[in-house]
Amino acid sequence: MQYNFFSMQLENIFDDTYFMKKALQEAEFAFEKGEVPVGAVIVIDNRVIARGHNLTETLNDVTAHAEMQAITAAANFLGGKYLKRCTLYVTLEPCQMCAGALYWSQISNIVYGARDTERGCINLQTKLHPKTVMKGGVLAEEASQLLKRFFIQKRNLN
Amino acid sequence: MQYNFFSMQLENIFDDTYFMKKALQEAEFAFEKGEVPVGAVIVIDNRVIARGHNLTETLNDVTAHAEMQAITAAANFLGGKYLKRCTLYVTLEPCQMCAGALYWSQISNIVYGARDTERGCINLQTKLHPKTVMKGGVLAEEASQLLKRFFIQKRNLN
Repeated sequence: MQYNFFSMQLENIFDDTYFMKKALQEAEFAFEKGEVPVGAVIVIDNRVIARGHNLTETLNDVTAHAEMQAITAAANFLGGKYLKRCTLYVTLEPCQMCAGALYWSQISNIVYGARDTERGCINLQTKLHPKTVMKGGVLAEEASQLLKRFFIQKRNLN
Repeated sequence: MQYNFFSMQLENIFDDTYFMKKALQEAEFAFEKGEVPVGAVIVIDNRVIARGHNLTETLNDVTAHAEMQAITAAANFLGGKYLKRCTLYVTLEPCQMCAGALYWSQISNIVYGARDTERGCINLQTKLHPKTVMKGGVLAEEASQLLKRFFIQKRNLN
């Protein structure tokens, strides 16, 4: 009984909030570098196999979104380009480019934090892979607050 | 008179066909590596500043499309992430991911060869940047034949 209870507790640790916190940590790293603070992790079997945060300014490269780096890193870890059975946690709803990359990856699950009604894949109707399930709103307020803090700071500096 | 005539001739060399042939050369490199043969170059002021060909199999990475590599290389060459005043020549109509990346790059022109009615950005209605003009059909038959040759060869090997 004691053991079962303990194992159940452990199981509960690895929920969407747990992994989204890891993605938020990545977003904080982006913030510290003066990058639009978006972070991502990719998880398989409750294990983080890839991390990424936005580096478009640092690398002078529009393709350097958090998700793109995480997709490349996860494929590298797995030794294959498909991310079946994987879940992406990303603090902001993916854009067309990232959703397009996720389409090719055939990833199982996408969990995002804050919505991006202007440039996000939902309103722009980017096609996801039929095997992919997407949901949002996990730690949305934290992700959104971090973005707001970034843009306020940026406005004050300029 | 002699000189003017010569300079006019030179001007005419650098048309869409000239640069699409460079993109087709890149597609041939992909073919030789057993990759789906798609190639791309990025041009500014009649000068090729970036090249790329599909490397998704070689790199085990769904993001390694010809266009994505060319975008990164061109930004690297220019020392800035925006590709204003640039033209992308690509042998196949860009997918959602690549069109999404091109959106962020604010590239001036996209010229593609063959249409991709299934996975291309036109039918999937990927949003391009308002400053971007896209046209297609340049050496479309050559690009298409190369793709057909690749898939026939692949079928015969399996």
